[in-house]
Amino acid sequence: MPELVPSIVRRSDSKIVLVVMDGLGGVRTSERGSEITEAHTPNLDRLAAEGSSGVHSVVAPGITPGSGAGHLALFGYDPLVYKLGRGILSAAGVAFDLRPGDVAARVNFCTLDEAGRVVDRRAGRIPTETNERLCKMITEAVKLDGGVEMFLVPEREHRALLVLRGMNLSPLIRDTDPGVVGITPDPPTATAPEAEVTALVLTRILEQIRLMLWGEQANFMLLRGFDSVQDLPRFEERYLLNARGIASYPMYLGIARLLGMAVSAPANSWDEVILDLKSSWDYYDYFFLHYKATDSAGEDGDFDRKRAAIEQVDESIPQIADLGPGVLCVTGDHSTPSPLMRHSWHPVPFLMWGPTVGVDTVTRFDEEAARLGNFGHQLARDLMTFMMAATGRLSTYGA
Amino acid sequence: MPELVPSIVRRSDSKIVLVVMDGLGGVRTSERGSEITEAHTPNLDRLAAEGSSGVHSVVAPGITPGSGAGHLALFGYDPLVYKLGRGILSAAGVAFDLRPGDVAARVNFCTLDEAGRVVDRRAGRIPTETNERLCKMITEAVKLDGGVEMFLVPEREHRALLVLRGMNLSPLIRDTDPGVVGITPDPPTATAPEAEVTALVLTRILEQIRLMLWGEQANFMLLRGFDSVQDLPRFEERYLLNARGIASYPMYLGIARLLGMAVSAPANSWDEVILDLKSSWDYYDYFFLHYKATDSAGEDGDFDRKRAAIEQVDESIPQIADLGPGVLCVTGDHSTPSPLMRHSWHPVPFLMWGPTVGVDTVTRFDEEAARLGNFGHQLARDLMTFMMAATGRLSTYGA
Repeated sequence: MPELVPSIVRRSDSKIVLVVMDGLGGVRTSERGSEITEAHTPNLDRLAAEGSSGVHSVVAPGITPGSGAGHLALFGYDPLVYKLGRGILSAAGVAFDLRPGDVAARVNFCTLDEAGRVVDRRAGRIPTETNERLCKMITEAVKLDGGVEMFLVPEREHRALLVLRGMNLSPLIRDTDPGVVGITPDPPTATAPEAEVTALVLTRILEQIRLMLWGEQANFMLLRGFDSVQDLPRFEERYLLNARGIASYPMYLGIARLLGMAVSAPANSWDEVILDLKSSWDYYDYFFLHYKATDSAGEDGDFDRKRAAIEQVDESIPQIADLGPGVLCVTGDHSTPSPLMRHSWHPVPFLMWGPTVGVDTVTRFDEEAARLGNFGHQLARDLMTFMMAATGRLSTYGA
Repeated sequence: MPELVPSIVRRSDSKIVLVVMDGLGGVRTSERGSEITEAHTPNLDRLAAEGSSGVHSVVAPGITPGSGAGHLALFGYDPLVYKLGRGILSAAGVAFDLRPGDVAARVNFCTLDEAGRVVDRRAGRIPTETNERLCKMITEAVKLDGGVEMFLVPEREHRALLVLRGMNLSPLIRDTDPGVVGITPDPPTATAPEAEVTALVLTRILEQIRLMLWGEQANFMLLRGFDSVQDLPRFEERYLLNARGIASYPMYLGIARLLGMAVSAPANSWDEVILDLKSSWDYYDYFFLHYKATDSAGEDGDFDRKRAAIEQVDESIPQIADLGPGVLCVTGDHSTPSPLMRHSWHPVPFLMWGPTVGVDTVTRFDEEAARLGNFGHQLARDLMTFMMAATGRLSTYGA
């Protein structure tokens, strides 16, 4: 069955702004409310009072999403249908222009003992400079079988991105990272016949790398999350929207780019994000603004920093609202409650504000207030439908 | 598409307790609230205050579930996909060890007149002792075609279980019970070609039984609910949980056993259920506790007895909570409002309590309070997802 929303889209000049506070959702504990509940957010509260609120489950009830799944859902791509694996996200994170057919994997430089057993899965978290030196050395020296190209792109510390480019490659390869120390890495193994050639190419590459890295602290590499870029429907075609992604972290820009959005350079601050929004306002229909600090603070278990991060976004809200979007939606891509210090399954609050959204009785932006709003409890993938509807972009369904 | 939850399960040593008060849900009438609303439940209220609440539709909105469907849903098996027929439930109810390929049916001993017309579909509700005598007589005397075994197990009064065991049997047989008096029973009829042999076997059995029962008040039997045990995914494999079912009624133990749970002996009281929970606490990860009195009282239209039954469970709650489960969920498998005196489609309240569940603003355990809780309105099959999530048993979905 074709998807409903793409089948009834039409153009409009009313603009959509989606503000994603990463890991926004929290939980009340016996001591106090969630971070949002405790935050001072007069501007978000005003939007809640003038608009409509709800909460969303990101993937499905009780399911904790990764960042890729969370963002796909907010972009209206059902994350149970469309997938972004670890390799793809790594590529997105270093702004690598992954092409259809490429096979990407996440690399961990590691340390093996003399018997070839993993003694440190992160090679003592080698400095990024060492990582860069090793990636350069390997890329220059590795010999590849006919027709295959290899890219090895350093990330931070011990992490890197490996990409193979060539004909007839397949990502159906098991992780070589054993996940524990004291045993040897697994050989690259195909999980389906069409990946046999890829497994062989990888085996030859790893043999050479083992020799090249002899004597280094990082004397081998572990691979996981083999992945190919999926043929994701392009955002612009799907929604007839000219879209721009604005973020500080390359990974979120990378996800936006995978869907075909125009993206900003990585912003150095939230102020720069807002500045980019203003300066590009006339040129796009849809703006995705990503704010990372809420998630980082939640993962660090730092309640006060997460609360302060929410308040920072709140301060910027009038500048966004004053641009006059057809709909402004503020939400998160998942919950990262600071008491849990990780992503969680808890529903995430959202608000929508704009001339046709309608006003409900909610006057405060937090989980507990939002739950009682007009939107009730939704799946994240349907938020895009509401944004499209609120900007007049969906035709009537049925005669 | 494979099911999501089984694809991301992992182990944890945090324990799950599910307390099912059968037929818990009720309705407010113009005179008063539901049984739960009127019950004095200080312990459940405390759990509601410290945890999160919601209501669930068991199968789908507006659908009244049977006991099998209700329990499958609470165990996380979508009752629209997985089914337990009447024959299976009868077998479960008498602890009959039904095997794959067996065909089971519910038997009603009945009374026919001289022309072979049904005059009493329950044979005057013959005493259970008569039932036992007749089942024994028939089992000993019946002659079966090569390779087929027959089991006839007495239940209470006029009810029994018939099981055929052999090669190439099929449950695709129409009920012989006409459902009304004054006409002759229908012959065993196959509804698909693969059941022709089974229909023939049944016809020969019924011919013999008609002769054997000549002169008895119960002079024939009506068959309905032909069914075979479905190849249900085992609970342990599906969830990596070592599970125990504890109940007073054999049928609920039987359902638990069908999923591969270890089960208690039928408990003689709710106190014995709690005692079994405590003594087996160290040996299992998941406990299903079944409480019947709420449903029985609701079916009898006895509001006060149902309320008192809820209060009995409430008194035991501290003993369960003190064991320190990772999550304790209290709910029902459907509603049995005493004003209606039968199962109904009305949503059922639930609460979840545990260190990572989160706290909402609900401070009372009843339908009206629960609806405003964090969980909002869910499908029963998703409750298991929440319990798995709250005990750290689900990996992040997507990278």
